[in-house]
Amino acid sequence: MNKFMQDFSLNVDLAIEARDLVRGAADTEIEGVTEEVISKEEIKTHIIKINTEKGAQKLGRPIGTYITIESPPMKVNDPYLKEELVQAITDSMSSLVAEFIKTNDTVLLVGLGNWRATADSLGPKFIEYSPITRHYHSYAPDALVEGMRPTCGIAPGVLGITGLETFEVIKGIVDNIKPALLVIVDALAAQNVDRIGTTIQISNTGIQPGAGVGNLRHSLTQADLGVPVIAIGCPTIVNAAVIADQAVKKFCFNTGASYDEIKSINSIREIVSFYGGSLSVTPKEVDDIIENSSRIISMGVARTLFPGITVEQLELYAT
Amino acid sequence: MNKFMQDFSLNVDLAIEARDLVRGAADTEIEGVTEEVISKEEIKTHIIKINTEKGAQKLGRPIGTYITIESPPMKVNDPYLKEELVQAITDSMSSLVAEFIKTNDTVLLVGLGNWRATADSLGPKFIEYSPITRHYHSYAPDALVEGMRPTCGIAPGVLGITGLETFEVIKGIVDNIKPALLVIVDALAAQNVDRIGTTIQISNTGIQPGAGVGNLRHSLTQADLGVPVIAIGCPTIVNAAVIADQAVKKFCFNTGASYDEIKSINSIREIVSFYGGSLSVTPKEVDDIIENSSRIISMGVARTLFPGITVEQLELYAT
Amino acid sequence: MNKFMQDFSLNVDLAIEARDLVRGAADTEIEGVTEEVISKEEIKTHIIKINTEKGAQKLGRPIGTYITIESPPMKVNDPYLKEELVQAITDSMSSLVAEFIKTNDTVLLVGLGNWRATADSLGPKFIEYSPITRHYHSYAPDALVEGMRPTCGIAPGVLGITGLETFEVIKGIVDNIKPALLVIVDALAAQNVDRIGTTIQISNTGIQPGAGVGNLRHSLTQADLGVPVIAIGCPTIVNAAVIADQAVKKFCFNTGASYDEIKSINSIREIVSFYGGSLSVTPKEVDDIIENSSRIISMGVARTLFPGITVEQLELYAT
Amino acid sequence: MNKFMQDFSLNVDLAIEARDLVRGAADTEIEGVTEEVISKEEIKTHIIKINTEKGAQKLGRPIGTYITIESPPMKVNDPYLKEELVQAITDSMSSLVAEFIKTNDTVLLVGLGNWRATADSLGPKFIEYSPITRHYHSYAPDALVEGMRPTCGIAPGVLGITGLETFEVIKGIVDNIKPALLVIVDALAAQNVDRIGTTIQISNTGIQPGAGVGNLRHSLTQADLGVPVIAIGCPTIVNAAVIADQAVKKFCFNTGASYDEIKSINSIREIVSFYGGSLSVTPKEVDDIIENSSRIISMGVARTLFPGITVEQLELYAT
Repeated sequence: MNKFMQDFSLNVDLAIEARDLVRGAADTEIEGVTEEVISKEEIKTHIIKINTEKGAQKLGRPIGTYITIESPPMKVNDPYLKEELVQAITDSMSSLVAEFIKTNDTVLLVGLGNWRATADSLGPKFIEYSPITRHYHSYAPDALVEGMRPTCGIAPGVLGITGLETFEVIKGIVDNIKPALLVIVDALAAQNVDRIGTTIQISNTGIQPGAGVGNLRHSLTQADLGVPVIAIGCPTIVNAAVIADQAVKKFCFNTGASYDEIKSINSIREIVSFYGGSLSVTPKEVDDIIENSSRIISMGVARTLFPGITVEQLELYAT
Repeated sequence: MNKFMQDFSLNVDLAIEARDLVRGAADTEIEGVTEEVISKEEIKTHIIKINTEKGAQKLGRPIGTYITIESPPMKVNDPYLKEELVQAITDSMSSLVAEFIKTNDTVLLVGLGNWRATADSLGPKFIEYSPITRHYHSYAPDALVEGMRPTCGIAPGVLGITGLETFEVIKGIVDNIKPALLVIVDALAAQNVDRIGTTIQISNTGIQPGAGVGNLRHSLTQADLGVPVIAIGCPTIVNAAVIADQAVKKFCFNTGASYDEIKSINSIREIVSFYGGSLSVTPKEVDDIIENSSRIISMGVARTLFPGITVEQLELYAT
Repeated sequence: MNKFMQDFSLNVDLAIEARDLVRGAADTEIEGVTEEVISKEEIKTHIIKINTEKGAQKLGRPIGTYITIESPPMKVNDPYLKEELVQAITDSMSSLVAEFIKTNDTVLLVGLGNWRATADSLGPKFIEYSPITRHYHSYAPDALVEGMRPTCGIAPGVLGITGLETFEVIKGIVDNIKPALLVIVDALAAQNVDRIGTTIQISNTGIQPGAGVGNLRHSLTQADLGVPVIAIGCPTIVNAAVIADQAVKKFCFNTGASYDEIKSINSIREIVSFYGGSLSVTPKEVDDIIENSSRIISMGVARTLFPGITVEQLELYAT
Repeated sequence: MNKFMQDFSLNVDLAIEARDLVRGAADTEIEGVTEEVISKEEIKTHIIKINTEKGAQKLGRPIGTYITIESPPMKVNDPYLKEELVQAITDSMSSLVAEFIKTNDTVLLVGLGNWRATADSLGPKFIEYSPITRHYHSYAPDALVEGMRPTCGIAPGVLGITGLETFEVIKGIVDNIKPALLVIVDALAAQNVDRIGTTIQISNTGIQPGAGVGNLRHSLTQADLGVPVIAIGCPTIVNAAVIADQAVKKFCFNTGASYDEIKSINSIREIVSFYGGSLSVTPKEVDDIIENSSRIISMGVARTLFPGITVEQLELYAT
């Protein structure tokens, strides 16, 4: 990854931004990486595939598929766009999970993140809004519409789990209930403010240490958990150092001064050092953005996992 | 257990009440069961030991020690009594765990119960107020006072774990982190209103299915989890049928009418049947009672697990 | 009111139960009180009108209209019944408010009750689910669908208002914003367990001291606030003494013993005295009941206040 | 105020930062403004007084006293420093309120801010931790320690008040209960990251529109409310544009490029425009900072309002 991000110990969470950083101004495709773009009304879907180990090294993430759904008007809570976004998530996720799960397989939903820090609460909110049916299967099967698979959920960062690593909790549950699939939702950091609340990434490669806003210390991947993992993320912050560097670059461009990466890093470090450089930038509307995104993602996931069941029916099974 | 409780599918959660029910008016000790009583100012501590399988069958619970701490003024939040209660819990719990844990052993705290139903939220509140240190051991050992063991906690009924059995979650975590001891806190049902918010039971036998206000379906015992278990409970409800039966009995006594158990059961069933008989009686002050009890229990447990560490120091590690 | 209720300082919150208590076994109408009953599928609506001061004295509540919507299957969260219940609330409430409010009048919604005691949280939940638009009128009128009136809401028992009387808060806001109508929602106490979660009362007489589960000390009526008041309530508890007395009565009936009110009162007092007699009986499912009722009431009120606006549109304005 | 802040519609919430901005590199005192500095161990207290209308215009805030308590180690939750900070707040606040309130006067505490956006929840948390006694005065005076004045509190941004202006709610309550003093706590925006969680400002001039993180639209001042107002604030954010501009300036200084304010503003605008420029920068630890600061402030205010009452006693009256 690039020097700036390394120096501030930052990750590039979105594959599409990693690709843009690697490619720079050049518009040529990276070796071992392919992209397909689908535009439909106000939504653009990029399907980026890392096909080779070389591509993986270049983009700093595992071989696999990374789907990015972009829609700037998503930041406004528009009821008409919502339906289209839900369908876009469903289509994307279906393309990734079709091979893994059969009709009655159990799915474990995981919402990462800190419930008490607004920008990091996307995952817990996702769990709150998702239909949960596994307990009905055991104790009240009649209350289920025909064909509803078992789902269960956990948000390890919600008050109520403490002093435990996320991995320890998830691994323990996976070993006990043996789901066919994990769907993990987490808040991400973006490189650009415009991506906050307007972008959703769906990948089939799980979550590696250091990804996301939180500080996960083990990977949540098929290799470590023994179960396929779909990770869905939505940027809710940009690191303050990234924004400051953009401002310096833009100022240099606008004034004709020459940009110097090392000097920019050092200048920014002086300003952001007090809290160890870990400063997040969020829009004032961050609680609305989280509310909106978590509902849309939970509806998209639900439509994928419970095809043919209506929204009204599913609502009865939310936590 | 007695017919009335069986007919309404109710448990007697407190060993001391089970003993009283079995003994009835007679004041003789039950075979295989011993009791020691310690009175100290406003607190009375009963140490009931079930020593034989026969005693266990009579009282309907496993061989082991059941300590009951009683203090009627506990229902008022008196700062002077609080200190004595914390010490009584510490003394009782220490006598049960001394053999199990060494200075640096990890302890897993479990708070059972439904976070959203006030009378059932004792366990989640206990976790909230308990000092949690395990993550410091891994990532910031300097922030710990010398001699603080690793503790971690989970409240599986808090929003954030859903569609999963408590047993599946606890078993998974126990298998992953291998603690030396489990301390489980849960709200209990009593036979008498006077016990609500005035009684604490500490036992070394774990929790069996059906115990507590919630509806646990596997046992949380050393046999099933592979780890010693201390269970601490505090009554927060009485079943409405139990109260109604007491009223019928008292009325018969006061009027000279003859009490008939079957007819009382049938009469009460007509009144409470609409919600399947599962009606809880709670005092109006139930949220204050839960607040008070959960703080006292968490302080008593903390003093047992972290001997010599002051309250002010421990407060820094609460969730 | 009857001796039993007086002796335990209890109120009969539902007019229909007050009527039944006064009428006793006799099935004749009370002087000054009229009733109309509308049955529609699984819902029965009673419109009780107290027309004279004499009727008011007999029923222990002011002259006015008290509409009771009854539907036993309401206790199960049935999506089809929900729509009918919402419409029944809308019809009932519309008949009471038609004369008071014009298209653009401001309406203040008030949710009484204690947010932290489950059985008493109906009012705060009602506010949470209600569409709130008054701030849009001032700052973002374009975000409103044509014809949406200004609504604002307050739940004075939610954490965040403390040490203040409900009346002081409501009166202050009413004086400042001068709404055309108040809609107050509160949890009620019933005389029968079957009414919990199955009955909704809508009246045009406001709320008098002592009504409801909480302990309101001033009245919230048009006389004191200067604004018409619609009160909507749903029983969530029965007092334990009431249930105990029913059990005694039923036992006497079933055994042929003779019932004696004074002796029943005295017997029950011995059992419930520890917490001052203020013991509530609630079904285990009380959090689901509150969730369900508060959503239904908020939808019914919204449909009355925003005729022609769809549920999906209204959802965007919930808190 | 300076051009940069005007262009981004930002306020300088801290008087000490406004003074520094006006003074620039010069170290001379501003006309009409005086400053006294008290250093005590790790705490530095600046007492800035604006004495004339001219000083007020220069600093862009009303005539009055602005006390700033600075302590960089405050960002770490150090139990020993905590006591000193509480005393520093008490000393500062006492110097401002001594003339206003007599022993038994009622004080209204107000916690501004949005409960659901972490960085803005300082005010609601302050209310949660403050001792509230007014209801005891009316209903249970025996439960109060001799000499405890009546206090009540409101956090208008907590779920439960919606569609209402803060001013409307506060004004209504003030008119109804007629307190002798208002104490308003709010999260502030700083100019420097180092001030987040390390600075407390106490002033006797109330709160003007636009101050604070939220978007207050009327002033909360003695002029408008008719009651003296003490405002206490703690910076929890810095605006992203401010940080970006600092980076540009530092880069220019480090590289020798010449800084141009207009060009910096324009460069930054391109980067932050997507969310209207209203981007907040917060450290990852913001929830701990808010927790820590709100407790310290509530203890300092309590010690001022209840002299001679111990912390343990006061804790019993927290919400």
